[in-house]
Amino acid sequence: MSVSFDYIRDPTEIYRQSFETIRREADLSRFSGGMETLAIRLIHACGMTDLAGDIAFSDGAFEAGAAALAAGAPVFCDVEMVRHGIIRRLLPAENEVICLLNDERVRPKATEIGNTRSAAQVDLWGDRLAGAVVAIGNAPTALFRLLELIDQGAPKPALILGLPVGFVGAAESKEALVEDSRGVPFIAVRGRRGGSAMASAAVNALAGGLGAND
Amino acid sequence: MSVSFDYIRDPTEIYRQSFETIRREADLSRFSGGMETLAIRLIHACGMTDLAGDIAFSDGAFEAGAAALAAGAPVFCDVEMVRHGIIRRLLPAENEVICLLNDERVRPKATEIGNTRSAAQVDLWGDRLAGAVVAIGNAPTALFRLLELIDQGAPKPALILGLPVGFVGAAESKEALVEDSRGVPFIAVRGRRGGSAMASAAVNALAGGLGAND
Repeated sequence: MSVSFDYIRDPTEIYRQSFETIRREADLSRFSGGMETLAIRLIHACGMTDLAGDIAFSDGAFEAGAAALAAGAPVFCDVEMVRHGIIRRLLPAENEVICLLNDERVRPKATEIGNTRSAAQVDLWGDRLAGAVVAIGNAPTALFRLLELIDQGAPKPALILGLPVGFVGAAESKEALVEDSRGVPFIAVRGRRGGSAMASAAVNALAGGLGAND
Repeated sequence: MSVSFDYIRDPTEIYRQSFETIRREADLSRFSGGMETLAIRLIHACGMTDLAGDIAFSDGAFEAGAAALAAGAPVFCDVEMVRHGIIRRLLPAENEVICLLNDERVRPKATEIGNTRSAAQVDLWGDRLAGAVVAIGNAPTALFRLLELIDQGAPKPALILGLPVGFVGAAESKEALVEDSRGVPFIAVRGRRGGSAMASAAVNALAGGLGAND
């Protein structure tokens, strides 16, 4: 038996129809310019048009992140999944994409500060945090820790993408960011939703707008 | 200034409270045994307890996948993000975790069959598909292609995790799987929702139940 399904096989057409559906169904009225493309990419990554209502951002956040990437800033990710979802080809300056979760210094640091490995790696970002793009797609503890370190005098990144997911601390850490981002431009999804696919999608939007992934 | 937020820093406690919240809020009455743990992991990966209602599965699907992993079966992933979300330490037989999306043979194969790279890689899985666990977390075309190849006589995997996400083909490819899985055990999330985090979480559940990730 040989069945052939009727489905769209052309990647460019798949993207076109996806973005068209999102523009038709989602309320994008709060967004414009680059921020609109980023919102579309976030929705595309999760398949839910109502996500638009949960997106919070500071004025000029998209432009701050895009400019940082154009100037060669590194991208710090909290988990390897985020790193591997970023499309290197889209990055404007062969930017470094860094995740230190599995660095050998992380376990002793986590013990030292009494926190998760995800949070402990933030301590290792050090001075390179200055002007960087930070993409947190998994761990609320990493976002809390980043805010703590900035309060303690750590250099400020160019943009924080606050997209941790889940039931313990995710909503709370993102509220802390949205309520007081310490003057750092931010983009976040309020509530429990988030995830590594959204975090990568946000970076891909900063780097390449709605260009096809393939 | 030195602010310290009040949040849970112990990874074991974070997992415990997360799973407790899911058990309290989600309707898990359709699930039992391993399938219940897998449903909890899927919900944990996306932060949405109502996902439970969209989970479809064949009888014994969890056990088929867990037994395949215990017997050393490889795990085929449609994208690198899925591969990198799988916790190697949990796998019972140092199972291979394979993604061929960036294999050099994929682009010519995609041109040959007039399909996406995601779909074309499925053609390269070949005889190793027999008894394997397939985790599709991104591309509807990969799931459609897998069903087409099985119809054309390709070996049957032990389990298909059908979790592509998005607006074009995701819901349709998963309906095709659920309506007629060609006798292959399956677990899927109906509708537009899905994603690489869910696909990795499903494999992690097959491998390690609700064991902590850290």
